[in-house]
Amino acid sequence: MSDGTDRPRVVIVGGGFGGLYAAKGLADAPVAVTLIDRRNFHLFQPLLYQVATGAIGAGDMATPLRAILKDQANTTVLLGEARTIDADLRTVELTDGGSVPYDTLIVATGAHHDYFGHDDWAPLAPGLKTVEDASEIRRRILLAYEAAEREADEEARAAWMTFLVVGGGPTGVELAGALGEISRETLPPEFRRISPERARIALLEGLDRILPSYHPSLSRKAAQELQRRGVEVLTGTMVTAIDQDGATAKRGDEELRIAARTILWAAGVRASSFGRTIGEVTGTPLDRAGRVSVEPDLTIPGHPQIFVIGDLAALKGPDGKQLPGVAPVAIQQGRHVAKVIRARLEGRSGRRRFRYRNKGSVATIGRGAGVADLGWIRLDGALAWLAWLFVHLWYLIGFENRVVVLTQWAWDFFTAGRGTRLITGDPLRPTLKRPR
Amino acid sequence: MSDGTDRPRVVIVGGGFGGLYAAKGLADAPVAVTLIDRRNFHLFQPLLYQVATGAIGAGDMATPLRAILKDQANTTVLLGEARTIDADLRTVELTDGGSVPYDTLIVATGAHHDYFGHDDWAPLAPGLKTVEDASEIRRRILLAYEAAEREADEEARAAWMTFLVVGGGPTGVELAGALGEISRETLPPEFRRISPERARIALLEGLDRILPSYHPSLSRKAAQELQRRGVEVLTGTMVTAIDQDGATAKRGDEELRIAARTILWAAGVRASSFGRTIGEVTGTPLDRAGRVSVEPDLTIPGHPQIFVIGDLAALKGPDGKQLPGVAPVAIQQGRHVAKVIRARLEGRSGRRRFRYRNKGSVATIGRGAGVADLGWIRLDGALAWLAWLFVHLWYLIGFENRVVVLTQWAWDFFTAGRGTRLITGDPLRPTLKRPR
Repeated sequence: MSDGTDRPRVVIVGGGFGGLYAAKGLADAPVAVTLIDRRNFHLFQPLLYQVATGAIGAGDMATPLRAILKDQANTTVLLGEARTIDADLRTVELTDGGSVPYDTLIVATGAHHDYFGHDDWAPLAPGLKTVEDASEIRRRILLAYEAAEREADEEARAAWMTFLVVGGGPTGVELAGALGEISRETLPPEFRRISPERARIALLEGLDRILPSYHPSLSRKAAQELQRRGVEVLTGTMVTAIDQDGATAKRGDEELRIAARTILWAAGVRASSFGRTIGEVTGTPLDRAGRVSVEPDLTIPGHPQIFVIGDLAALKGPDGKQLPGVAPVAIQQGRHVAKVIRARLEGRSGRRRFRYRNKGSVATIGRGAGVADLGWIRLDGALAWLAWLFVHLWYLIGFENRVVVLTQWAWDFFTAGRGTRLITGDPLRPTLKRPR
Repeated sequence: MSDGTDRPRVVIVGGGFGGLYAAKGLADAPVAVTLIDRRNFHLFQPLLYQVATGAIGAGDMATPLRAILKDQANTTVLLGEARTIDADLRTVELTDGGSVPYDTLIVATGAHHDYFGHDDWAPLAPGLKTVEDASEIRRRILLAYEAAEREADEEARAAWMTFLVVGGGPTGVELAGALGEISRETLPPEFRRISPERARIALLEGLDRILPSYHPSLSRKAAQELQRRGVEVLTGTMVTAIDQDGATAKRGDEELRIAARTILWAAGVRASSFGRTIGEVTGTPLDRAGRVSVEPDLTIPGHPQIFVIGDLAALKGPDGKQLPGVAPVAIQQGRHVAKVIRARLEGRSGRRRFRYRNKGSVATIGRGAGVADLGWIRLDGALAWLAWLFVHLWYLIGFENRVVVLTQWAWDFFTAGRGTRLITGDPLRPTLKRPR
């Protein structure tokens, strides 16, 4: 795959935050960049839960990679899936037999959700990483209310109207908050037989508080805001089994059984399997979550021309803890790698340590409520929500998306509406029961 | 399925234009309305080609039926699929075993595309009736350019860059016009190896002009506008075979073979199969397209309590021709039936003849170009396009959708952008060839 120039070839695998910002950081650099992704779009994952809960359409969270990079003349986008690499020949091998040579390789294939060894839970409790995941979750939430409306048996109806969210991190909190709002604000006027506001929504977290990466005072605030939205917050509660009819959990010595037809998974992530391939080919160790252990400059030991960034990189911060799997880390690492490559081209030292500048964390619980931990200040309520809104609009790719999403948010804010409530795919799966 | 009242039960099967406007026409009437649909949303089909061509997201074309009817207290929405009816017991039987009794039944299950006996063409040349169809067409269009970008063989590349639209009615014209704009305006800056503006786009119509239901002068204008957008207009061209590699057509005595990897079907429609069921159960004849032959008041002969409306109804206009399968006919029929039912409740004559008031037709060819045939005046160019825009925004359900769609249109108009270009589902099907 020659590009017809003699420029050094930089190949980036993965068009998430890490890969995209690395590519953008190489705009105008005297290199030939090839960005390989399985999907034709960059997905703004931090707002994916809004697609899953019907607030916005998938298209507004996704921008074609080609459109983002169209004015960057040194960059080619390639739709394809990396299978492995040849570290000696310096090529990326694609699943369809193609081969892409590199001088420098940036691996940024991210992470997906993980069921801690219980892969059989995957179909029972979908996680939220792709647009297809979001459609599936939206489908299940909406179908559950439809099934409840048609269910004559009280117990069965209660199971349809019980929603469990497993995992009290930001995604779990945001999903649970949105589920609360849907049941309490959006749906009540639309059903004739059931009372959607009586749906049971429970957030299950194994640790003793939700949002464990935030200051404890914010965890408390978030729990209060969730409870105001009708969400039960069950901390210290570890899910031990999931089946068609519900979930079993351990809470201290107590065993808890909750009948539920809708269970959503927001508990664990695992590095993408391409990390294992990179580890095997280059002899680099992985950490427990499958992340590739990188040097402080984000290269692989013994392979200074291979960088691993984002959710796929195992790297500790100054506090000795693994850097979190969040967009700001990936963005900063992408930019850092671009700088290192530029420095090398200019003959300057190529071994620069990556330092994460933590500007803080912000999560939303629902309309007008959020928590923000900026280190120097902690916010909650409307102010935190505004901070969340501003940050996410700022980083959302594409001015058009920003306008459309802001319009939709403004609309939803004033009407409690959620306009994008399509059940797509086969609408009648799972089989609905006979009507009363 | 008792609603707990003694009101006469009106059951509507199908939440398209006909069924929805019938339901809305019965707001505040002393009846208990049940609207049954397989989908949880009303789809604004006239703009579905915009979803298929990446201009807008599916969510903006679809509104939950429950949301539309939430304030109509006498109406229940039921997610379910009608299997058959029992005309003696007066019940609608659902596929999952449920049974819904009616006093008056309105059947409005619409039509789907038809391959004139060549059902094997369906997977090769998808038509455009559902949101899933639109996603699949969008997928194929976008993947074709991706495959072309990676294809080394010139002939194979040309086949990926050839797009055939079969059928020169409004949908075919709109699809072809959008394909022209995508290739000439949207994509060129985004690809590095191919020149999207050299894509071949052909519109194949069996009759001697496109838009045959319009005045011939407008057919000519439309053909000119399409040609300006790079679309070949092949009239008098009847497709005789479709396979994986392209299509064969007859043009007079000439046989035409066009190698193409993307073929879209906009040629024929056929009434939904529930029409045949109604025909069999009630002994009512169907026309050749499977439509149910109704009385002038839209009831079935001998069954004054069963109405059939919209694309499913076979009814001739004053010109002796079948009424067209368009939204205005369905809307007016839905409203008419609601009026007849109200009149019957008041003891007035229930046999009122339906009269279609044709306010004209309008189709768009692309940005700033359209044709409008209003009977008393014929428009083309920007004026027709504005008429098209106004009419479609007016009938689009939901103020929120209108705002979002108008925003998106304004944006696209000035940028030639198409923001909703997601390839969803399995992104790497069909298998892409090895890169050059």
